[in-house]
Amino acid sequence: MCDICVMNAVKDRMLSRRDLFRGGLAAGVAGVAATVTGTAALADGHGSIRDMTHTLSENFPTFFGEPGYGAEALFNFAENGFNLLNLTINEHTGTHIDAPLHFSADGRSVDEIEIGNLIVPLCVVDIRAKAAADPDAQVTPDDLESWIRDNDDIPDRACVAMMSGWADKVNTAAYRGADDAGVLHFPGFHPEAVAFLLERTSASSIAVDTLSLDHGPSADFASHYAWLPEGRYGIENLAGLDQVPAAGATLIVGAPKHRGGTGGPARIFALI
Amino acid sequence: MCDICVMNAVKDRMLSRRDLFRGGLAAGVAGVAATVTGTAALADGHGSIRDMTHTLSENFPTFFGEPGYGAEALFNFAENGFNLLNLTINEHTGTHIDAPLHFSADGRSVDEIEIGNLIVPLCVVDIRAKAAADPDAQVTPDDLESWIRDNDDIPDRACVAMMSGWADKVNTAAYRGADDAGVLHFPGFHPEAVAFLLERTSASSIAVDTLSLDHGPSADFASHYAWLPEGRYGIENLAGLDQVPAAGATLIVGAPKHRGGTGGPARIFALI
Repeated sequence: MCDICVMNAVKDRMLSRRDLFRGGLAAGVAGVAATVTGTAALADGHGSIRDMTHTLSENFPTFFGEPGYGAEALFNFAENGFNLLNLTINEHTGTHIDAPLHFSADGRSVDEIEIGNLIVPLCVVDIRAKAAADPDAQVTPDDLESWIRDNDDIPDRACVAMMSGWADKVNTAAYRGADDAGVLHFPGFHPEAVAFLLERTSASSIAVDTLSLDHGPSADFASHYAWLPEGRYGIENLAGLDQVPAAGATLIVGAPKHRGGTGGPARIFALI
Repeated sequence: MCDICVMNAVKDRMLSRRDLFRGGLAAGVAGVAATVTGTAALADGHGSIRDMTHTLSENFPTFFGEPGYGAEALFNFAENGFNLLNLTINEHTGTHIDAPLHFSADGRSVDEIEIGNLIVPLCVVDIRAKAAADPDAQVTPDDLESWIRDNDDIPDRACVAMMSGWADKVNTAAYRGADDAGVLHFPGFHPEAVAFLLERTSASSIAVDTLSLDHGPSADFASHYAWLPEGRYGIENLAGLDQVPAAGATLIVGAPKHRGGTGGPARIFALI
């Protein structure tokens, strides 16, 4: 183990460097969008990046209503010369993956999802109008057919994402939409839309900007049970869908890679 | 909360679907490389993806020598109709990020790293030959100048990665290289190389295929203290560097996004 005394000894040097730090690359606040600075070839195709990830914290809303994330400082700079947190994370918290194993006995775990299914075309199905009128709204086959009419076929291995407008409610009680009986109210995928995608497309994944692939009042998780055991995966609590086009963006799904995981918080970008 | 009884009731239906699942998109084992299936524009520039991420498990080696990851099943399919793990994670475990805050009093936390610094050109500095001869080998300014002679200037916001060959040792005691006195032995960045990058480049990050930015026997973490407080970040335990070219690949750093984090496990890809 490192010598904490030595680390403390260098703190004084650190203090003198803060001004440099403040004036360096750290200038500015991390934003939602940024210009791609990768190779020219990448920039030619995709000029900017969107962050599709909510910030995770103790207060992030969860399906079960209990905190899904906690952090404890094991070391802190003042006493130890460095900062380090120990995290406790319910896998299905924040912007996260549902691996096939989440709703199957022996499906792929999150570390087993093919990487070719983690960088894929993004299709954004906008149901904001009907979701504004009914929080229990669902993506239906009609919504998918409408998207196809407007944008062409759903591409190979695509992620088909529901944009309900719920991402904007993430810090309000409306995000869970619990009624007096404890029943939740938010949009999701109708099982018939899931069947449509299974039968007619090779979509790798479906994504929602809400807490669950199934809409809030679902009592049987029919969309989870239809989709995940087929070896496809889900994304919940996706952010930023209003910052990307209906078709043409590429979704980069930084799924976690812990062995045997049923899912977990992911860093997700879109290139547009 | 969902009705577990309902979930159990659908298990029988699930069982009949397993054959479908086995024969579906899940065919084949998730590999290290895959063909990009994003938009044509992306595929034009980058034909394939490499996974630069080690699989995280209870046994993954750590700097401190104690397990940095644990998982507890809160729900299991046989009893509950779905699987879900609760994770305990030391932020600096597995393939992970060192945010500026890790070694500074008030640097950027991992959620504050600019997304424009998370998709960047990758420069691979190959020191395998000298690391094979000396496990305490370090990346020096000479190594960086040699890379520049061979490959042109280090690009804007690049990630400069040390390839020491250590990724292949990850399941052996040689990965930590602890001697009888408990001193670790593995390669890292020399503080002079860090100073070179700070003074002459806008590199966003340095990466190592070992447990620490500083080499194993470092007693003062001089490279950590030189680099991170400047607002730049680090990547430790990077995998797959022998699968990418010295120059020309784009690194995609799926850093975690928990508020105030000092780092954390990341999913990292390279597009080549």
